[in-house]
Amino acid sequence: MTTYVLVHGAWGGGWKFARVAEALRKRGHSVFTPTLTGAGERAHLLSGDINLTTHVADVLNVIRYEGLSDLVLLGHSYGGMVITAIADKIPEKIAALVYLDAFVPQDGQSLFDLNIPANTQMFLERAGNNGGLLIPPPPAKAYFGVNDNDAARVDALAAPQPIGTMIEKVTLTGAYRAVKKNIYVHGAVLPRESPFKRFHDAAKQAGWETHALPCGHDIMLDLPDELTEILDRAGR
Amino acid sequence: MTTYVLVHGAWGGGWKFARVAEALRKRGHSVFTPTLTGAGERAHLLSGDINLTTHVADVLNVIRYEGLSDLVLLGHSYGGMVITAIADKIPEKIAALVYLDAFVPQDGQSLFDLNIPANTQMFLERAGNNGGLLIPPPPAKAYFGVNDNDAARVDALAAPQPIGTMIEKVTLTGAYRAVKKNIYVHGAVLPRESPFKRFHDAAKQAGWETHALPCGHDIMLDLPDELTEILDRAGR
Amino acid sequence: MTTYVLVHGAWGGGWKFARVAEALRKRGHSVFTPTLTGAGERAHLLSGDINLTTHVADVLNVIRYEGLSDLVLLGHSYGGMVITAIADKIPEKIAALVYLDAFVPQDGQSLFDLNIPANTQMFLERAGNNGGLLIPPPPAKAYFGVNDNDAARVDALAAPQPIGTMIEKVTLTGAYRAVKKNIYVHGAVLPRESPFKRFHDAAKQAGWETHALPCGHDIMLDLPDELTEILDRAGR
Repeated sequence: MTTYVLVHGAWGGGWKFARVAEALRKRGHSVFTPTLTGAGERAHLLSGDINLTTHVADVLNVIRYEGLSDLVLLGHSYGGMVITAIADKIPEKIAALVYLDAFVPQDGQSLFDLNIPANTQMFLERAGNNGGLLIPPPPAKAYFGVNDNDAARVDALAAPQPIGTMIEKVTLTGAYRAVKKNIYVHGAVLPRESPFKRFHDAAKQAGWETHALPCGHDIMLDLPDELTEILDRAGR
Repeated sequence: MTTYVLVHGAWGGGWKFARVAEALRKRGHSVFTPTLTGAGERAHLLSGDINLTTHVADVLNVIRYEGLSDLVLLGHSYGGMVITAIADKIPEKIAALVYLDAFVPQDGQSLFDLNIPANTQMFLERAGNNGGLLIPPPPAKAYFGVNDNDAARVDALAAPQPIGTMIEKVTLTGAYRAVKKNIYVHGAVLPRESPFKRFHDAAKQAGWETHALPCGHDIMLDLPDELTEILDRAGR
Repeated sequence: MTTYVLVHGAWGGGWKFARVAEALRKRGHSVFTPTLTGAGERAHLLSGDINLTTHVADVLNVIRYEGLSDLVLLGHSYGGMVITAIADKIPEKIAALVYLDAFVPQDGQSLFDLNIPANTQMFLERAGNNGGLLIPPPPAKAYFGVNDNDAARVDALAAPQPIGTMIEKVTLTGAYRAVKKNIYVHGAVLPRESPFKRFHDAAKQAGWETHALPCGHDIMLDLPDELTEILDRAGR
């Protein structure tokens, strides 16, 4: 039995992992899908005060309060920022890191530093027209290539993303490099240039286990069975 | 007798206008120097939730609660964003707008849009290393050319500037153009390229009353007597 | 020339002191009328998080950032809680304390402890029906005996009072007793039993300068000339 902590991305929520979580539990595993403050069902806590530090604390506290260890820690998209920061703090509790079409930061980098500059610029523009602190969600299908069955629900449940989560630079001592198993899962079909392809390619270069799946950015919605299989194997 | 509302800039506070306010009061005028939320003596209210809208409300409410009208409204630096937004909402209450080495926005622009791109980039970097939401104050003398007698106090009393105040784009209907008198006062001696020179030059071109004074960015500290004289005349 | 800091009461705002401030300035004095967070023109900052400590910081910071000393510090009504706490922290900067129909706390007391129990009970009831954290303003004329000309404006500009300001007990070391001059000004005509009469009587007993004026609770609105005269003399 393996313990999984699955961390969603910007404009997301733990609910996106429902299918994968159920499938993993049926195989006997323990799965946590914490929703980050201000997102998903925590949208009533949305405020401009939220930053990357808030979200790292969100997940660190789940691990601490649930007493988890030897876990497979997955981050989707922006969630890559969060899981890297966590791995840097408690590498001894993490058996594997899974970057699900996610950003892979180095010390001192923010998501805005890592994203394609035109995307960063667009997010700043959209926040600028929305009070300056909250980035409205881009359309699920047109921007993230979400499948037709799920796109409307993704749009309906998406809350604005607090800008501090994307401006704050992550601080890493390098301790996260002690985690033995690193996996990159890429959604290779995006209706635009993917900011994640270069992370996938770098991961491959570095000898990580990598997967490029024929789907959009929300792999847990588009191809839940394939992802479940990858995760199940990651825990062995 | 004229009523003045003097709005400070980023990392500032109402206290910066103490000399000018005293001098204007000695001449029989009524002077308000509201401190914006999170700045100066309101630093204990600092939070990442503060944006341009917060600061516009700060000053609009002073005008409303004190029952002010026929006023000379001055904005220093970032304060130019604030006073333009206010003039757009209550142009009928404003006799003159004074831009004191200030940004002069058009509809849909943020301070980050108006600043020299390298400055905007530096502010984002510094916020990114500081939790993502708060921009630490630049040094008064080295960055703003503040005079030797005041620089240490300016540094000591400066609080971080909430990033939403610089990212949020101002919404202007154009109603502010009904204000008849517009004045630009430029501090022409900066230890770097001045973002304000182009606003001064454009103001001159547009036929505004303009002044280019031989001092740094904090004109109310460097040349209070000269500024008092300009303001006294502006109210006539 | 004397420096005055005038602190308003619950449901009030700095604007209530406009007449007195103008009259004092005409006599050559320097006057500050800070509005407490969540009140008056700071009503857009209203939140259940505000307590007595917030308001003490509001005024302490004005004194610090404006560099004030040797000042006459006045508190109206609830403002008596605030000025006593301030005097306890910086007694060396205060030449005189003026309690304007104000509560005079001892160490460990809250406004709710000091008010007539039926009033405290009513405020708790009203907050209880309003989310638990904010006390709606009582009617200016019927409850506070405000004069006919000002009552409507007082009602219009009154914001709910955060309950933490009345529940939080003040901490006093006793250092405030070093302030040499203490004055109590009582508004003797209230349309109900006055909670302030006993503070006035105790002040008289203690040998303070006391005044019982033939007006309601908002003395600065009902009898501004008389109050100005008292304050002018207090600064000599």
